[in-house]
Amino acid sequence: MDLKKYIAVVPDWPQPGVQFKDITPLMDNGEAFKFATDQIVAYAEKKKVDIVVGPEARGFIVGCPVAYALGVGFAPVRKEGKLPRETVKVEYGLEYGKDVLTIHKDAIKPGQRVLIIDDLLATGGTIEATIKLVEQLGGIVVGIAFLIELAYLEGRKKLDGYDILALMKYE
Amino acid sequence: MDLKKYIAVVPDWPQPGVQFKDITPLMDNGEAFKFATDQIVAYAEKKKVDIVVGPEARGFIVGCPVAYALGVGFAPVRKEGKLPRETVKVEYGLEYGKDVLTIHKDAIKPGQRVLIIDDLLATGGTIEATIKLVEQLGGIVVGIAFLIELAYLEGRKKLDGYDILALMKYE
Repeated sequence: MDLKKYIAVVPDWPQPGVQFKDITPLMDNGEAFKFATDQIVAYAEKKKVDIVVGPEARGFIVGCPVAYALGVGFAPVRKEGKLPRETVKVEYGLEYGKDVLTIHKDAIKPGQRVLIIDDLLATGGTIEATIKLVEQLGGIVVGIAFLIELAYLEGRKKLDGYDILALMKYE
Repeated sequence: MDLKKYIAVVPDWPQPGVQFKDITPLMDNGEAFKFATDQIVAYAEKKKVDIVVGPEARGFIVGCPVAYALGVGFAPVRKEGKLPRETVKVEYGLEYGKDVLTIHKDAIKPGQRVLIIDDLLATGGTIEATIKLVEQLGGIVVGIAFLIELAYLEGRKKLDGYDILALMKYE
C-alpha cells in the first residue's frame, strides 16, 4: 500500500514556506490506518516492547493503537501543566523560544523496554526531549517509530545511536 | 476487572474542590488498557460503526485503539487552528468563557455511522459540540462511549436521545 497517497500536503501551513504533511486522511481511512499501525506493530514485536510512549497529540493517535495491538500500556508525554500527578520534565528548544515536556514519574519502571512513537520526525527536538524523559525514569529506548520522516531536516542526527523506523520519507 | 482500581483520583486539580479522575494509570497498564478498549469495541460492533470521532487529546487515547480494532478510520476533533485544511466549527460554552472545536470538512461522508469516544463525560459540553460537528457533515451518531461518567454533573441531559456507554460511573 502506498501510504503517501493518504497524506495531504498543505502548502504554507502553519507558516509561509512550510509544506505541512497532514496525516488525517490516512487516519480517516480504516484500511490505511490499520496497514500503517500493523507495520509499526511488526517492528515492535521484534523489539520486545514493554510500554509505548508518545508525545501529545498526534503521538497519541499513532501510538495508542500500537500499544493496544501489542497488549502493552501507553504513557503520554504532555506539555507542562496537563498531567495531574508528580512528573519529571525536560526543557527543549523550538525554532523560537522553548517549551517543556513532562511525563508522570510512575509512568515507566526502571528497566522497561520503551518504544517511542510520533507521527512525524522533523528536526527531532520533541523526540530528543521524550528520550530524555524516558531515560530519566530508567526506561530503555529500544526503538522510535514515525509515520513520516522529513529527511531534509536531518532529525536523525539528534537521535544518533537509536533505532528508527519511518514508514514514509520525504527527501 | 475492576477498572476503577486503575483510576487515580487527584484532589483539588486542576482547581480547588475538583476530584480529578486521572486515566493514565489505566492506559499505563497493558491488561487494563486492552480490557477497557475491548469493552468499547464489543459495544461498537453492535452499532455497525463506519468511523470513530474523538476530541483532543484524551479522546485520541481512548478512541484510536477502538478504531484500529474495528478496522475503521479515526477523525480527530481539535481546538481551532490545529487542523490544516478546510474545517467546520462549533462554538461551545465553558464554565468561564467559550471555546471552539473543529473537524475537517472531508472527515465524514454523509450517511456514515459515527461512534464518538472520549475519556470522560462531565457536563457534556465538549461532546454536545462534537455531535454538532458530526451532524453538520451529515454523519449519524450511532453511539457515544466514555471510560468514565461523572453522573452527578448530569452530562447525559445534554445528550438526550443518544445511546451512551460509560465503563465506570462516579455518583
